[in-house]
Amino acid sequence: MCKGFPDHTALHAELLELFDEFGQFGKTAEGGLCRLAASKEDGEARDHLCAWLKDNQFDVLIDAVGNVFGIYDFGPAYPKRYFFCGSHLDSQSDGGRFDGTLGVAYACIAALYLKQAQNKETLKPGFRYFVVCNWTGEEGARFQPSLIGSSVFNKTLSIQDAWKLKDADGICLKDALEAIGYCGSDDIPDPDHYLEMHIEQGTQLEERKAQIAAVHSCWGAIKLRVEVLGQADHTGPTAMEDRRNALLAASMLITQIEEISKASTEVLYSSVGRIEVHPNSPNTVADKVELWIEFRSASTEALRIAREAFEASTQNIAHATGCQLSVTKTENRDVIHFDEKSIGCIQNAFEDTGTPYLNLNTIAGHDAIKLQSLCPSNLLFVPSKDGITHSPDEFTSNDDIRHGFDGMITALSRLMCQPQGGQISGKASQ
Amino acid sequence: MCKGFPDHTALHAELLELFDEFGQFGKTAEGGLCRLAASKEDGEARDHLCAWLKDNQFDVLIDAVGNVFGIYDFGPAYPKRYFFCGSHLDSQSDGGRFDGTLGVAYACIAALYLKQAQNKETLKPGFRYFVVCNWTGEEGARFQPSLIGSSVFNKTLSIQDAWKLKDADGICLKDALEAIGYCGSDDIPDPDHYLEMHIEQGTQLEERKAQIAAVHSCWGAIKLRVEVLGQADHTGPTAMEDRRNALLAASMLITQIEEISKASTEVLYSSVGRIEVHPNSPNTVADKVELWIEFRSASTEALRIAREAFEASTQNIAHATGCQLSVTKTENRDVIHFDEKSIGCIQNAFEDTGTPYLNLNTIAGHDAIKLQSLCPSNLLFVPSKDGITHSPDEFTSNDDIRHGFDGMITALSRLMCQPQGGQISGKASQ
Repeated sequence: MCKGFPDHTALHAELLELFDEFGQFGKTAEGGLCRLAASKEDGEARDHLCAWLKDNQFDVLIDAVGNVFGIYDFGPAYPKRYFFCGSHLDSQSDGGRFDGTLGVAYACIAALYLKQAQNKETLKPGFRYFVVCNWTGEEGARFQPSLIGSSVFNKTLSIQDAWKLKDADGICLKDALEAIGYCGSDDIPDPDHYLEMHIEQGTQLEERKAQIAAVHSCWGAIKLRVEVLGQADHTGPTAMEDRRNALLAASMLITQIEEISKASTEVLYSSVGRIEVHPNSPNTVADKVELWIEFRSASTEALRIAREAFEASTQNIAHATGCQLSVTKTENRDVIHFDEKSIGCIQNAFEDTGTPYLNLNTIAGHDAIKLQSLCPSNLLFVPSKDGITHSPDEFTSNDDIRHGFDGMITALSRLMCQPQGGQISGKASQ
Repeated sequence: MCKGFPDHTALHAELLELFDEFGQFGKTAEGGLCRLAASKEDGEARDHLCAWLKDNQFDVLIDAVGNVFGIYDFGPAYPKRYFFCGSHLDSQSDGGRFDGTLGVAYACIAALYLKQAQNKETLKPGFRYFVVCNWTGEEGARFQPSLIGSSVFNKTLSIQDAWKLKDADGICLKDALEAIGYCGSDDIPDPDHYLEMHIEQGTQLEERKAQIAAVHSCWGAIKLRVEVLGQADHTGPTAMEDRRNALLAASMLITQIEEISKASTEVLYSSVGRIEVHPNSPNTVADKVELWIEFRSASTEALRIAREAFEASTQNIAHATGCQLSVTKTENRDVIHFDEKSIGCIQNAFEDTGTPYLNLNTIAGHDAIKLQSLCPSNLLFVPSKDGITHSPDEFTSNDDIRHGFDGMITALSRLMCQPQGGQISGKASQ
C-alpha cells in the first residue's frame, strides 16, 4: 500500500509558482500564450525549464528533435530504469496557459515529491530514475503535423523528415531549433513507463465534479490537406458562369464537412481550422485554396464512412464549380488504447484513497499516445473550465491544480509500486 | 474633320517597346506582374515613367497621394487648359501585364503623336496641354479601397484618410509612398477632359471582332467588409454542438452570396475574393474571420434586393452557428454614366473612319469613373483574350494593341476638335 504521504502544501506552492513562471514566456495581452514550437518564446521557456532542472540536480539531455529530458538519478540503490513524465511547452498562436505547460510543471514538482519520499518503504518496490520530459511541437500550430517530438521519439517520424518540416514562412524545423539552441545530439534511455498530466479540454470533470480522470483511449482521426484549384479572374467583369472560384468551392466543402459530422450515426467530430487563399485579393477570383481538414471519432467505421462521404463531396463540388479538388496529404491516426494494467492500478489507487475520479477517453491527440507504443503509458486529466481550450479563455483554478497534483501523486506512487514496467498490457496498441 | 493623320508604324513600335519596358518591373515567373501599389516594384515602374517623361520634355508633377502627372507644354500658342490621359501602373499580387499598364503606355505614345501633329489645322480648334497620368493604388490589392489616387483627386477621399490606409502588414500608405519617394506636394491643374484606355477584361470585343469599344456607363457596386466572431476552441474535444465556428459561418455566407447572385432576376455579379482567419491553426476552431464581399449590377434595384437578401443571410447564419456577423465597412458605388456628348463625338469618329467598334458598359471600376465627376471623361476598351484578367494569363495581342492605338488616336483627335471641355453633358454623374 502506498499510503501516508507527507503534506503537500509546500509542493503545491512550488507547483503554482513554477507554472506561473512558465506562463510569462509568450504571454499575450489577453492573458493567453503565443509560444509556437521552436520560437524565441519557446526557447525562453525551455531555458527556464533547463535552469530549474539543473538547480534541482537533474541531468539535462536534448535529443535531435529538441525534446528536453531532465533525469533525476536517485543513486546506486536503484536500477537504471526510467519513469518518464511530462508534456509540452509549445502553444497555439493564440492559445491558453494550461495546455501542455501544466503537465510539464506537474512532472517537475512530482520529481521533487519523489526526492523527498524516496526512502519511504512503500515506494521502494518499483522505484526508478525519474525523467521530466518536454516534447517538441505537440500543437501542430507552427509546424504540421502535431506530436512531432514524440513521433520522432517513437520512430513513427524520421528525424530527417522532421527537420525538413516548414512553417508558413518557409523556415524549417532544424533551423528553428538551432536558432534557439535546442537541436541536440544526446542519446536518451528507453522509457519504462510514461505518465502525462493534462487539462481535460472538455467539461466532464467539471460537470460531474470529479478531481481527476484516467484516460482509457484516444479517438482515431483522419487529417487531410486539400488543394482546390480554380482560375484567377477579375471579380467584376468575369461572367458568373465563366468563373472557377476556388474560394467558393472551398466554402462549399467546409459546409459539407459539417454536414458529414451531423449525418454520422456514431459521434464524429469534424473541422476545418486553417485555410490559405491565393491571391486573396478583394478584386480577384481565388485560383488556389488549401484547407486543413480533420475528422475524429472513437469509431473506426464512422471514420471510414466519413472519408467516403468526403470523397463524394469533393467530386460533387468539382462538378458544380469547375474547380479541381485533390487531397495532397493524409494522416490516419488509429484509435489508441492506453495500458490496461496500469489504468487498473491507478483506478485502485483512486478508490483506496477516496479520490473522486472519472474514466474518460481523449479526443485530442497527446504525446502519451505516441509513448504508448514504447512503454505502458497513462494520461490523466484535470478539469478545464467550460472545456474552453486553444484560447486565452482556457482556465483551470488553483484549487483544481492542487487537487490534480494530489491525484497525480496517488497514481504515481502506486505505479511506482508496480513491478518494473516495459511490458504493454491488454488491448494497448503499438 | 480630323482626317489624314500620318502613318503610325514608328509610334506602334515605341508603344510596344515602352509597354514591354514597364512589364519588367515586378515581372513574375509565370509572365504576370506582382506590382502592388507603392511597393518597391511600383516605385521602379514609376521611376521609369518619370525618366521617360523627362526624356521627352514633359514637366513631371507628383501630388500628395503619389499620382504622377507628366505635362506637355505645347507652347504659348495654346491656352493653359489640360487634357488628361492615363491609367495606373499598380497590379494585383499575381496579376497580368496589361491591366492599367497598357493605358499608361498608350497615354505616353499618344502624347508623342500630338507633338508630331500639333501644327495640323485639324487639331487646332481644341488643342490643349496634354497630361499623362498614373493614378496611385487603382487595384485595391495592397490597400483598400480601390481607386485611391483618383478618389483623392476628385475629393471623394481625403488625403488624410488615404494616408492612413494600411496594408495587411500594418504599413500605412503615406509611409509606403515616402519609402519609394512618391509622396509629393505639387499642385495639379484642373482637368478639362479625361481619356483612359484599358483592356476590356471581358469577351465582347473578341467575340464580335471589334477593334475598340466606347464605354457608356459603369455598373454600380456594393462592397462590404464583414466580421464574423465565434469562439476559439480545440478542434478535437469540443463537442460539435458547443462550437461557435467563425470559419463555418463565413463559408455558409460565401455560398449564400453565390445563391443571391443566381436568384437575381436582373444580372447581378457577386464575389468574396479575400478572407482573413484567426488564428488559422489546423487544431483550433476559428474565432474571427473577415470577409471582403461585393455585389455588382447595372441595376440599382437589383443591388438593393441583393443587400436585403445579404442581411437576411447573415441573420440566419448567426442563428444557425451562434456566431456574430457584422458589417464593418460599406462602400456604395452608384451606377456612373460617362459624358454623353463626347461619347457621341467618339462614335462619329469611329463611323467616319470605318473603325469597327462596340458600345459597352464596364463592370469593373476604373479611374475614369472618378474623373467623370470633375470633367467630361471617356473610357475606351481594347480586346482581352478570353476575358481573363487579374491573372498571369491576361493577354492582348500586339495586333490588338496597335489597332487600339489607331482607334485611340481617331477618338483623341476628334475630342481635340471639340470646343474646349470642362462641361459635363447629358446624364453623366457627379
